[in-house]
Amino acid sequence: MSEKRTELEQLGEFGLIDHLTEKFENKQSSTSTGIGDDSAVISHSKDESMLISTDMLIEGVHFNLMYMPLKHLGYKAIAVNVSDICAMNGVAEQITVSIAVSSRFPVEALEELYDGIRAACDTFNVDLVGGDTTSSLSGLMISVTAVGRAKNDVITYRSGAKEHDLLVATGDLGGAYVGLQLLEREKQVFEANAAIQPDLDGHDYILQRQLKPEARIDVIKFLKELDVVPTSMIDISDGLASEIFHICKSSDVGCKIYDEKIPIDTETSMTAIDFNLNPITCALNGGEDYELLFTISQDDFEKIKGNPHMTVIGHITDKAAGKYLIDKQGAAIELQAQGWNHFEE
Amino acid sequence: MSEKRTELEQLGEFGLIDHLTEKFENKQSSTSTGIGDDSAVISHSKDESMLISTDMLIEGVHFNLMYMPLKHLGYKAIAVNVSDICAMNGVAEQITVSIAVSSRFPVEALEELYDGIRAACDTFNVDLVGGDTTSSLSGLMISVTAVGRAKNDVITYRSGAKEHDLLVATGDLGGAYVGLQLLEREKQVFEANAAIQPDLDGHDYILQRQLKPEARIDVIKFLKELDVVPTSMIDISDGLASEIFHICKSSDVGCKIYDEKIPIDTETSMTAIDFNLNPITCALNGGEDYELLFTISQDDFEKIKGNPHMTVIGHITDKAAGKYLIDKQGAAIELQAQGWNHFEE
Repeated sequence: MSEKRTELEQLGEFGLIDHLTEKFENKQSSTSTGIGDDSAVISHSKDESMLISTDMLIEGVHFNLMYMPLKHLGYKAIAVNVSDICAMNGVAEQITVSIAVSSRFPVEALEELYDGIRAACDTFNVDLVGGDTTSSLSGLMISVTAVGRAKNDVITYRSGAKEHDLLVATGDLGGAYVGLQLLEREKQVFEANAAIQPDLDGHDYILQRQLKPEARIDVIKFLKELDVVPTSMIDISDGLASEIFHICKSSDVGCKIYDEKIPIDTETSMTAIDFNLNPITCALNGGEDYELLFTISQDDFEKIKGNPHMTVIGHITDKAAGKYLIDKQGAAIELQAQGWNHFEE
Repeated sequence: MSEKRTELEQLGEFGLIDHLTEKFENKQSSTSTGIGDDSAVISHSKDESMLISTDMLIEGVHFNLMYMPLKHLGYKAIAVNVSDICAMNGVAEQITVSIAVSSRFPVEALEELYDGIRAACDTFNVDLVGGDTTSSLSGLMISVTAVGRAKNDVITYRSGAKEHDLLVATGDLGGAYVGLQLLEREKQVFEANAAIQPDLDGHDYILQRQLKPEARIDVIKFLKELDVVPTSMIDISDGLASEIFHICKSSDVGCKIYDEKIPIDTETSMTAIDFNLNPITCALNGGEDYELLFTISQDDFEKIKGNPHMTVIGHITDKAAGKYLIDKQGAAIELQAQGWNHFEE
């Protein structure tokens, strides 16, 4: 090993991946798209391709078992991977699940985890086809790989957004983050005094957004039925702002989004305000909503207009015009990508 | 969670996987083979299928960085997954690599790891197409998924062995295990007195077997050239005896193997004896050789006869005849499956 020591947080998560993989060259003709989008694309025919995506969840980094029940954790681990296949406009069909687990967990705990995995397999219509089970020295780690499929003419990359395209978000945003704030607060109350029961009443929606996120397989179906092929797409795992940055960078464009257009649920807004948080900031930087963000040609606007699952939040501009959030007074605020950097947590 | 507590080691690794996945049902027509073989088989056409295999390596469980250089670890992580694709008589084409790493590792350490991954990608002709990079609270974890391809008429499962088929092992066995004993001994010497330099001279072969195992992609090519489709196949990751048990269980057969036929390198034998270990026991129970074990019809014997990479070690019998090792004196010893149970370590 060389004597130089560069700390991981100096590069950040995305910089680190870029740095470590920059020397790799693809050799297989079947490798259509490698690193850099939500899924890899492997093509063996002119008609359709396989999509491969993988994610790792680590106890203490991505989840805390003090408030994340194992069944929900299993469900979420599958949902986030299926979401990556959705983000390519594909349909997930298989998953593999590898777990490393310390002897602190009994078999019954893993049964709960797998009950959640099975519930997700049923909801998202995917088959568990493989995996690995091993011991760990501490804690629980889950690594999931999702395998999906899409016709080549509908696969949607991050890189296809064009000037004047409309930016569309599905569902509503910020709920998962506000739900996490609530769980963190109740955990601290519990740690200070174990006799106090958690006060989670009336927050079902944001708790569900954090604990049991759904992959938007329904949106992929709607797009097909509506005959809309987005020009670019990504799933919102790290927060709207970060995902906008990915699309703009990959597509070499800029954008304008309007804060009053960003879809935020009332429960999310009210709870955010209780926590002295700006709901728009929660939507922009919160992450873990697993909604989809995509761009469409203006010609397709009539097809999605009025669809309750899709909200136009802005449009794509020339790259030189930058990336801006326009507030209710018309002021333009430059967007900041504040997605999660796990190495700084 | 129920009040019952069953410890993980009561089920063992394979029993645990069976238990956790028994309630899962496959729903996708493309899922040809799910859990239970070296890879999953996903079929989208009558001609060929995709093969998916995944493995997780955990610091302190599967590797010790005190004697496993990071470059070798990266290489090995890829080799063991490519080996699983070989075990289906397929060709690996893509891999994904997810790592979780604590801040104790600088960027330079991960560069070494990825140098090894890249060397393996070049050797085995696979493309790195995705992955995840995240922090861990302690240590290093690597999760690799390999994606391969095979014509449907040559895919080889564990379940096809028939009575009178010949059992064939590739390369030689036990070396990786004896290499590990050597590294463990030198580690203990070093821990007792850091001034003593490790004495590893003359053990290049067994050290390479442990530190830099190769997936037998050459054997898959030979089989194709020789026009031999094995009736069953598995890779030797947990030791010859354990793999024989898997083939016999999946194929519902028994077997006889002959101890004097088991291929063992001279350096492996001599070092084993130095450690007061029986070389045959090292081959049977050692594991991590990543050679292939397969069965062929007797009609194919002439095709592989004299091939330096393949050794006939026995034959398949009726299930009722059991699983026996025949020693040089002709005595029959019942085989014991002593593969690794990670939960007992």
